[in-house]
Amino acid sequence: MIDQLIKKINETQNPTVVGLDPRLDYIPEYIREKAYDAYGKTLSGAAYAFLLFNKAIIDEIYDIVPAVKPQVAMYEQYGAAGMQAYIDTIAYSKEKGMVVIGDIKRSDIASTAESYSDGHIGRVLVEENQFEVYKEDFITLNPYLGYDSIEPYMSNCEAYDKGLFVLVKTSNPNSGEIQDIMVGSEHLYEYMGGLVSKWGEAYMGQSGYSRIGAVVGATHSKQGQVLRGIMPKTYFLVPGYGAQGATAEDLAGCFNKDGLGAIVNSSRGIIAAYQKPAYKKDFDAKDFAKASRQAALDMKADLNRVL
Amino acid sequence: MIDQLIKKINETQNPTVVGLDPRLDYIPEYIREKAYDAYGKTLSGAAYAFLLFNKAIIDEIYDIVPAVKPQVAMYEQYGAAGMQAYIDTIAYSKEKGMVVIGDIKRSDIASTAESYSDGHIGRVLVEENQFEVYKEDFITLNPYLGYDSIEPYMSNCEAYDKGLFVLVKTSNPNSGEIQDIMVGSEHLYEYMGGLVSKWGEAYMGQSGYSRIGAVVGATHSKQGQVLRGIMPKTYFLVPGYGAQGATAEDLAGCFNKDGLGAIVNSSRGIIAAYQKPAYKKDFDAKDFAKASRQAALDMKADLNRVL
Repeated sequence: MIDQLIKKINETQNPTVVGLDPRLDYIPEYIREKAYDAYGKTLSGAAYAFLLFNKAIIDEIYDIVPAVKPQVAMYEQYGAAGMQAYIDTIAYSKEKGMVVIGDIKRSDIASTAESYSDGHIGRVLVEENQFEVYKEDFITLNPYLGYDSIEPYMSNCEAYDKGLFVLVKTSNPNSGEIQDIMVGSEHLYEYMGGLVSKWGEAYMGQSGYSRIGAVVGATHSKQGQVLRGIMPKTYFLVPGYGAQGATAEDLAGCFNKDGLGAIVNSSRGIIAAYQKPAYKKDFDAKDFAKASRQAALDMKADLNRVL
Repeated sequence: MIDQLIKKINETQNPTVVGLDPRLDYIPEYIREKAYDAYGKTLSGAAYAFLLFNKAIIDEIYDIVPAVKPQVAMYEQYGAAGMQAYIDTIAYSKEKGMVVIGDIKRSDIASTAESYSDGHIGRVLVEENQFEVYKEDFITLNPYLGYDSIEPYMSNCEAYDKGLFVLVKTSNPNSGEIQDIMVGSEHLYEYMGGLVSKWGEAYMGQSGYSRIGAVVGATHSKQGQVLRGIMPKTYFLVPGYGAQGATAEDLAGCFNKDGLGAIVNSSRGIIAAYQKPAYKKDFDAKDFAKASRQAALDMKADLNRVL
């Protein structure tokens, strides 16, 4: 799947991923009303509004953006109905040919990790019946528990051509509190980068990149460069561009010289573009998805400027 | 809620929590058949089997065990139907007066953590309507992202009397790969213990323990003792007893001298007791929940022996 992602990035000439992290206040009133007419102002109504909103955006971006990254928390908070909207969003994205990165950041001991793995990127058995439940192409994982919390995902990665992005250096302001601790002569994020790179060696794609990628926040431009050096064959999922404050220049160091090696996420900046001053004058709420398309094109141009 | 948990532990004289981590192969055939008759051999059928199984066990243990800890992965893997069974299991446990620790081990940046927090321990809004979705009393969290990934849970902890258990030292074999790294003169788990203890100082209960607890694996007996010293006012959630190999002696150091300070989890050893040689001779599959009760009583006696 890492090869498939790179193929899509090359085809679209666009190393970006759109974060499908809906919130009710991003969603135009007419969409919300349609959802509430069907399900009431309930958890199911909110979940349906998310799905309608996502589908409209996917329809406008699938030909210019290689991948989407739904953040499961946005859906999970609405209970079972929310999780179904997460599943339906993934299914629709894949129908449209997009690569799906499930931003789940799960972490658990091996026997539990197997359940997450089977549900998200493998198959679940109910007696003789086999189910493919969530169907993400990639998922994100938190490595604090060590390799036996990551390894249970690898058999499904190989059997079903899936991939992982493991947290190395996150984009949030306090990420340094633990990740920047000095471990001997290096920071913990460097040590973790070395581990993730080593874990990935046994799972290389034909592209020369591993199935095991890394999350490297764009808000730390020097660290991105350092990690690029430590992890030359690891693809980076780079959050933090746009709403979190990182610029194209900040994250240029996350890429290799050939312009590959990283995929940059933007969520609010794309999906709620129609609410931003820059797009408000050209797009009204009815055209929210067209504003998302324009914002995605602008982001592509911005990144390609520095690559 | 930490005070409520301690009250329940004192009432039952039992510092244990039963992990409600069902798997289809733990569930007697007659229960599975009942569920499949209702929903077929589907994700919904599996989810309903989990709920029937859990309810029968809760009915047998609620008067002798203070708390349950459902592991969300077991349910999440079955999709939306699984998540509903997780929610229904929590609701039933609370109806019976048990404290519920949701083992979710989530980790994310602040804006995302708010969504997990609202969904799991707070309230979710759909326009003017407010919903309490998952209703756990405590949840577990992974701290790799630093305090701004934990802090968003605290307003709901205070508003709705909830609590957290933050991973410090986990019970799995590879936990040392990252958690035992030397940070200056101490291990990372000690450093993390110090942080979690400090984070908890602002959220003390009347019992003298903080709303912010820690996960400390029983499989590392010396580390438990060391962390007890570093974190005197932090309640420990202690996994690893039984199926993962830790004995009562191994985890004695996790307790304070007054016999409080820790709650020990057992999952398979209790919920699948009827499949174990020790209980098989006295309990058949029809009596699986009674076997769970006996195993819970045996665990209580075993722990009280060393406290």
